[in-house]
Amino acid sequence: MADDRDLRELQDKCGIFACVAAKGVSPEEADVANVICLGLVGLQHRGQESAGIVTNDGNRFYTKKGMGMVSNIFQDGCLKELEGCMGIGHTRYSTAGSSELLNCQPFVVDTVFSHIAVAHNGELINATSLRNRMLHQGIGLSTGSDTEVITQLLTTRPSCGEPNGADWVARIKYLMKQTQCAYSLAIMNKDSVFVVRDPYGNRPLCIGMLKKSVSSLNHELKRFNSLTNIESKINEEDDVLAWVASSESCSFPSIGAVLMHEVAPGEIVQLTPSGPKSLAIVPPERDNYPAFCIFEYVYFARADSMFEGQMVYTVRQRCGKQLAIESPVEADVVSTIPESATPAAFGFSQQTGIPYVEVLTKNRYVGRTFIQPSNRLRQLSVNKKFGPLTENFRGKRVVLLDDSIVRGNTIGPIIKLLKQAGAAEVHVRIASPPLKHPCYMGINIPTREELVANKMDAEQLAWKVGADSLVYLSLEGLETAVQSGIQETKGRKVGHCTACLSGKYPVELEW
Amino acid sequence: MADDRDLRELQDKCGIFACVAAKGVSPEEADVANVICLGLVGLQHRGQESAGIVTNDGNRFYTKKGMGMVSNIFQDGCLKELEGCMGIGHTRYSTAGSSELLNCQPFVVDTVFSHIAVAHNGELINATSLRNRMLHQGIGLSTGSDTEVITQLLTTRPSCGEPNGADWVARIKYLMKQTQCAYSLAIMNKDSVFVVRDPYGNRPLCIGMLKKSVSSLNHELKRFNSLTNIESKINEEDDVLAWVASSESCSFPSIGAVLMHEVAPGEIVQLTPSGPKSLAIVPPERDNYPAFCIFEYVYFARADSMFEGQMVYTVRQRCGKQLAIESPVEADVVSTIPESATPAAFGFSQQTGIPYVEVLTKNRYVGRTFIQPSNRLRQLSVNKKFGPLTENFRGKRVVLLDDSIVRGNTIGPIIKLLKQAGAAEVHVRIASPPLKHPCYMGINIPTREELVANKMDAEQLAWKVGADSLVYLSLEGLETAVQSGIQETKGRKVGHCTACLSGKYPVELEW
Amino acid sequence: MADDRDLRELQDKCGIFACVAAKGVSPEEADVANVICLGLVGLQHRGQESAGIVTNDGNRFYTKKGMGMVSNIFQDGCLKELEGCMGIGHTRYSTAGSSELLNCQPFVVDTVFSHIAVAHNGELINATSLRNRMLHQGIGLSTGSDTEVITQLLTTRPSCGEPNGADWVARIKYLMKQTQCAYSLAIMNKDSVFVVRDPYGNRPLCIGMLKKSVSSLNHELKRFNSLTNIESKINEEDDVLAWVASSESCSFPSIGAVLMHEVAPGEIVQLTPSGPKSLAIVPPERDNYPAFCIFEYVYFARADSMFEGQMVYTVRQRCGKQLAIESPVEADVVSTIPESATPAAFGFSQQTGIPYVEVLTKNRYVGRTFIQPSNRLRQLSVNKKFGPLTENFRGKRVVLLDDSIVRGNTIGPIIKLLKQAGAAEVHVRIASPPLKHPCYMGINIPTREELVANKMDAEQLAWKVGADSLVYLSLEGLETAVQSGIQETKGRKVGHCTACLSGKYPVELEW
Amino acid sequence: MADDRDLRELQDKCGIFACVAAKGVSPEEADVANVICLGLVGLQHRGQESAGIVTNDGNRFYTKKGMGMVSNIFQDGCLKELEGCMGIGHTRYSTAGSSELLNCQPFVVDTVFSHIAVAHNGELINATSLRNRMLHQGIGLSTGSDTEVITQLLTTRPSCGEPNGADWVARIKYLMKQTQCAYSLAIMNKDSVFVVRDPYGNRPLCIGMLKKSVSSLNHELKRFNSLTNIESKINEEDDVLAWVASSESCSFPSIGAVLMHEVAPGEIVQLTPSGPKSLAIVPPERDNYPAFCIFEYVYFARADSMFEGQMVYTVRQRCGKQLAIESPVEADVVSTIPESATPAAFGFSQQTGIPYVEVLTKNRYVGRTFIQPSNRLRQLSVNKKFGPLTENFRGKRVVLLDDSIVRGNTIGPIIKLLKQAGAAEVHVRIASPPLKHPCYMGINIPTREELVANKMDAEQLAWKVGADSLVYLSLEGLETAVQSGIQETKGRKVGHCTACLSGKYPVELEW
Repeated sequence: MADDRDLRELQDKCGIFACVAAKGVSPEEADVANVICLGLVGLQHRGQESAGIVTNDGNRFYTKKGMGMVSNIFQDGCLKELEGCMGIGHTRYSTAGSSELLNCQPFVVDTVFSHIAVAHNGELINATSLRNRMLHQGIGLSTGSDTEVITQLLTTRPSCGEPNGADWVARIKYLMKQTQCAYSLAIMNKDSVFVVRDPYGNRPLCIGMLKKSVSSLNHELKRFNSLTNIESKINEEDDVLAWVASSESCSFPSIGAVLMHEVAPGEIVQLTPSGPKSLAIVPPERDNYPAFCIFEYVYFARADSMFEGQMVYTVRQRCGKQLAIESPVEADVVSTIPESATPAAFGFSQQTGIPYVEVLTKNRYVGRTFIQPSNRLRQLSVNKKFGPLTENFRGKRVVLLDDSIVRGNTIGPIIKLLKQAGAAEVHVRIASPPLKHPCYMGINIPTREELVANKMDAEQLAWKVGADSLVYLSLEGLETAVQSGIQETKGRKVGHCTACLSGKYPVELEW
Repeated sequence: MADDRDLRELQDKCGIFACVAAKGVSPEEADVANVICLGLVGLQHRGQESAGIVTNDGNRFYTKKGMGMVSNIFQDGCLKELEGCMGIGHTRYSTAGSSELLNCQPFVVDTVFSHIAVAHNGELINATSLRNRMLHQGIGLSTGSDTEVITQLLTTRPSCGEPNGADWVARIKYLMKQTQCAYSLAIMNKDSVFVVRDPYGNRPLCIGMLKKSVSSLNHELKRFNSLTNIESKINEEDDVLAWVASSESCSFPSIGAVLMHEVAPGEIVQLTPSGPKSLAIVPPERDNYPAFCIFEYVYFARADSMFEGQMVYTVRQRCGKQLAIESPVEADVVSTIPESATPAAFGFSQQTGIPYVEVLTKNRYVGRTFIQPSNRLRQLSVNKKFGPLTENFRGKRVVLLDDSIVRGNTIGPIIKLLKQAGAAEVHVRIASPPLKHPCYMGINIPTREELVANKMDAEQLAWKVGADSLVYLSLEGLETAVQSGIQETKGRKVGHCTACLSGKYPVELEW
Repeated sequence: MADDRDLRELQDKCGIFACVAAKGVSPEEADVANVICLGLVGLQHRGQESAGIVTNDGNRFYTKKGMGMVSNIFQDGCLKELEGCMGIGHTRYSTAGSSELLNCQPFVVDTVFSHIAVAHNGELINATSLRNRMLHQGIGLSTGSDTEVITQLLTTRPSCGEPNGADWVARIKYLMKQTQCAYSLAIMNKDSVFVVRDPYGNRPLCIGMLKKSVSSLNHELKRFNSLTNIESKINEEDDVLAWVASSESCSFPSIGAVLMHEVAPGEIVQLTPSGPKSLAIVPPERDNYPAFCIFEYVYFARADSMFEGQMVYTVRQRCGKQLAIESPVEADVVSTIPESATPAAFGFSQQTGIPYVEVLTKNRYVGRTFIQPSNRLRQLSVNKKFGPLTENFRGKRVVLLDDSIVRGNTIGPIIKLLKQAGAAEVHVRIASPPLKHPCYMGINIPTREELVANKMDAEQLAWKVGADSLVYLSLEGLETAVQSGIQETKGRKVGHCTACLSGKYPVELEW
Repeated sequence: MADDRDLRELQDKCGIFACVAAKGVSPEEADVANVICLGLVGLQHRGQESAGIVTNDGNRFYTKKGMGMVSNIFQDGCLKELEGCMGIGHTRYSTAGSSELLNCQPFVVDTVFSHIAVAHNGELINATSLRNRMLHQGIGLSTGSDTEVITQLLTTRPSCGEPNGADWVARIKYLMKQTQCAYSLAIMNKDSVFVVRDPYGNRPLCIGMLKKSVSSLNHELKRFNSLTNIESKINEEDDVLAWVASSESCSFPSIGAVLMHEVAPGEIVQLTPSGPKSLAIVPPERDNYPAFCIFEYVYFARADSMFEGQMVYTVRQRCGKQLAIESPVEADVVSTIPESATPAAFGFSQQTGIPYVEVLTKNRYVGRTFIQPSNRLRQLSVNKKFGPLTENFRGKRVVLLDDSIVRGNTIGPIIKLLKQAGAAEVHVRIASPPLKHPCYMGINIPTREELVANKMDAEQLAWKVGADSLVYLSLEGLETAVQSGIQETKGRKVGHCTACLSGKYPVELEW
């Protein structure tokens, strides 16, 4: 997955972000809409097709959504119109048509008690049967989005009634009973934001603390490993400005926040001006394992994010080391395709002692919309993006690391470019196992037929793309690389969803 | 110069590109407009404000110019309207107002013999006195651009008359006598393209050969070290599709071209369908030295370009090594700010044995137009662009390489970010000498007052930005790093313009 | 209401259009999306803020909506993507924010049987209580639009169940029982389009026949005065291409259609490839009268539309005659402000014998967005739009007809302009009674406080605007002018809603 | 020329406007850029493709140009950046490509004394030979525009030198000697604006006085019939804010100006803060006649403009009367196609006593870019723009006035529409003679081959378009209608260019 085009082949569907100003902080000081906007910029790699922010001032909801990149949508002072001391945001990738502003999140609906806004990362395995049930109830659905289904489930009042106003926890638990995975949610009513992770913990979600004056950006995971009795754990010197939640912790430093808690699988946390409070942990139906998506480590997440107490970059580096152990090769230099598998390449280099060099420079001005008509030039399109640093590899044997192979269309032209520019040999090492199965939990993967790993084995692929050798990391190797860095947490089980690699899905598939 | 904003602080003014289809090649096969467009994408780092292409079919000239990036301007089939078997292109940065489509190049004018189109990289030292002379002659000038001055000088007929049609070489020599530096030019009449470099060779320019089928992308500098008797040197197996010229060789691989010749200072080369022919070498007025801009090596050029027979990346690596020799420091890791001084950091690491690691990851989705109102968030703006890879440097002493310091505004927040994220010490090493003087030859440098090197020395700067130490490369060190890799070429003198660092200008300044 | 700005003061909310290709006609021949698009262009005066078209091919629904004018939204071949042999369209004006693409119609929802699309002209008097009931049922509502309420009412299954598929007539009758006015609707399922007019007939709606070859554009109202036994009334030589429905008949000639039937108050007509069929006439709850909006005659409708068997232009001309009878004046010329009350002015001239002349020419290039900062120029803004044809009225006494007065801001500057240009006297005659009351049935009228008729009587207004006299048409006069031309139709009662003039609403207002 | 498309068939090329604030008026009070902008809006009918304004504050020139309509170009506060107390503006139509921002006027050039700006309406008959002479002098020309030629002629210093600064009058006279027609010019240097009309007076130009407080908008032509001794004619109560010049007087009321002087053929008037001063009247080379374009009366000018002391509307009305005298017909109603020949139709009605009625209503929302693919709908395109007011003409004999016939494509479908809607007979009367010859003086007329009058006579055309009769106005009739209203001015000859109708050109054509 060497370049932007491939990025579209394998795409996480969303990023979510929430912010609630701390007690006593004025709207100007909290600057909630800006904080969310910056948070979304930090999650932009999780979706570039549309984005939205909804805030509320305890009374009215303010919404702004649009197609395109976060920094293009929220221009021209439109953030000023997003008033209030709390809000949620969303950034989205979708396979739907580009004009589908209708599907942009967060969704806002009016309910009998108040408006609510919902932002969702993930995909409901039983969305179809839920849709059908609603249609039979006579509810017209105006989009094809899972999030509309979630929203309508949330508007359903609990059977016991709600004599004292809305019982949102009961409504959220009802939602969690109706569908088990995969979702991470931010749900805002007029008083607070609920953040929820599905019982299998398939999509990531974490909580941060935004201090007025930043002295350290180091995470405080140990101090806040639980959110019960949260109030006693907050010191005065914490000097809190706001509480935030995000799909990934990488969005925290840009707003001056620190990571304080990773939302547990099945956990419901309420963010209010007084701080986050853990309200419940709903267990999965099948007790076998938590199932956090292993591909977040392999490819989706930004390298500076933390999951399960470890930095993604470090895990990727361990993948490279593991690959060097499993599949060493005699070579002169180790390298990678820019901005793809750099940590894995460093890991491979450290394990083998073969020096790391750069073999390609990237032209960052290549636009996506650029079209060349002639065949001759189309065949050279990889050369438009990458320039060979010939003096670094001419006449040398190169080990080229990549993070994963999807359709297998990009690696061939890169190898050709390196060889035309003088590489003696090119050995490809893929820092993940063959990708063979569809994902129904929030990742956009090409069809089974399009995945090259279903069409040929590593040796055949090596021949096809012109590599002198090509080896994947083993599934066990990947699991070892991921899990060996997770610190034992009392009573917390470790487990990952490897469905796209192994075909083993966390829940039964139902159509 | 760590990031995009700084890039605008110090900016080369232009890139030029030319293409002439070889004899017997059809317009469809040559695909000239596409080749130029791709060539300009490869020169986009030399100017992002506007771009233009002019082609001609031996009869009519076809022009398309626009504000913005190459890939945005040349969309929607507009390349198809740029007909013909030759053309020139230009990409430009300018300090002028954004709406100045008037100033976009190439300039096209009608002359008594035919239309000509002119693309120009550089800046005329005596532009003002030339303008005044023209105004006295009763010629109205409609732009403030040097290129209009050049164009009007070219339309001036030689005093001896031109009994047999236009004598373009005489006209170009007249132009070269009127002004000596700095310019690299592409001049197209209806039959051919002339490419010209000023007698001091201040701005770069090179020539390439575009083959029908690409087997090797290695440069053929040795084979074509002279363009006299060019025809005898072209083999049949060269299988030439077109001849191209470019400000930098980095734009050649993307169109399948190989570098064949670096235009010599003062050289006039004519590109026709039969190939490039060297017509003359006009010597400089002051014989002291050639004066190729040393900052092309330091910062402007793309790392994969070749100048004077050496790859820019390699020169930068030598700068890092030289810096390690001049100013070593005890530390745990060496690193750089992403996409800035990576080769220098590798050089420093190799020389010292201190391991190279990545300390920051870059958010490539940060838009330029993004605005945050509150002070608190503005102070964090560097955090929006870079995420700390904390596990790679927490508790460690970091050597941080940068290529140059202009205003000195960016490095401070980066150091603060690294320290807040846990760096024990941060030692800054700048791979070039202090930048102190304005450039009048084509580089956009802030005023003397804005350059931080005119306000404080290295020690004071270290204190101001919070570095534990900060050292520049010496001017001699830079010259050594650049010149030690240049292969002796018979009769060719070596020399570089270091005016912005040393204050020594190649020609007398005249106002 | 002399000019474009005023037009926004008093605005019908929508226009709807439908088309169903006749049996045996191919999609290419029927060209449904283009027919609807042209139909909407003919209804553009009923709403310029957004527009949309939904078609269906018996299987999939195809939707395209956008902000702005019809001719801007449906460009660039996007009509080709609207496939199928039937469709509905909508053009809309709204007080909601300009970016509210969410609220654009037609609305499309999925139901248990099929998708349906709904286009709506009008406003529900009891929308608020209907909304609340739905929210209590646990249905989340995502817009503030009445049309979402209508759509959700339509998705409600009849209590008796629908053993043999959807019973749309039962569902539509249920909808009609829940709310009585005001609406004209086009509802498309995958087989047909239902067009419905509320029991009071408040908003207009009519049906047309689109012939393959156009020989006459004259309406065939007499031949098709009922749609029962429709099939026996269609001759072979009718040569039908498609059946269409529209808010106004003025959109028919541009597609080659003829007006065949005005949908009766409370009538449900189904358009299928076999032709229109009247399915039911639902009577109003209060039997007192039909209540077709009289202001459609006064101002909203296009002059070439037919309502109740008479041309709107003719009715307006009768208003002018009636005004001349009620309030004659000695004068030299009769005139009007361009494109406003021309028919009334002709009527006044015919009745009195005072010659009609043009006093102003209109600058049709005045843009809406144009802004002038200085007070002096702002006071002249009416002069920007209208140029005085001085030789036609210098030294003369002018009677100036206008159709209505809303805020009363425009007429003053016009009178001033005429007098500065030499008019001896200016007598204003308004071809409708004073506008005093809000409309809750689909017209956007300023608040009671903003209506000038609630602030001063005719005499005071004359003084304020500088008129030598100013008289309104009486309510009885207007009713006479409207109703005297309606041909007696057996069993059909005649009646009009005059709420905005008289304060008498057709149904009880409920909040 | 019934509609917008035809309007593009026959198009005046430009409108020019100038404004100079009176002595002692502050820039804020004068609001020069806004005045020019409004003036251009009033000239928008003379060119809709691009527009520009240049102002100067005695020091710097400020320029803003753009493609499109005046009200779109000058938005968003850009007028504020056009500083200073004088300026000129231009609005333009051109056959050149839509992206030719290069050709937008006013042109600004630097000269040896100061910048000058030039705005031009007209076309130089000898442009080609002037271009060639310049190219031979070694001046490169960067556009194909006549205005660049004019601008370069103006930069030429008079042979006697200019010892005391620029002698602009000498330069303008030199320009006027080089080319005799057709042009009206506004030339701004840093102190004043010169307005110039060619010796034949082919294109219109007039001067106005902008008062601080407007009491009357009546022209003061008699008072200012000469601009010599202008100062003695200006009273204190004139209370002058600024002096303006315009192609047509119709742009004066919108800024509160009154018409004071029509620039005479060959006259050079200088506008300074002290008022307009007539500097010279350059006689034509051929003394035979003045040659003001008669088509300005027929079609181009706005009906409320004054030429030669008479209102254009009145002249057109006389054309209709003349036509009724020349070619009467028995009929029931007289009418016209909306916004085309209304005054002529009134004239015809007055002369014959046949009542005037409206037969068509215009849909003003029809966009220009709208495209319909099917043939059936394309044939109906005239119905999209015009709706038949059937009750006004069903069963009646209609006389339909039009101002002129160019290609003859529009009138046929209109007649068809009227007949399909029930007209018994349609008799066409054209209020001008057959259009047969090209114009080389500033009007864009189709080629000889495209003009229908060169292909068939009136009778043949009647048959082709389906008219029951079709008659043109005679050339003598037109000249009578135009000239009978011109008041005898002492010593001033009357004469008009009728070249497009008669083939007689005012000067010898030279290629």
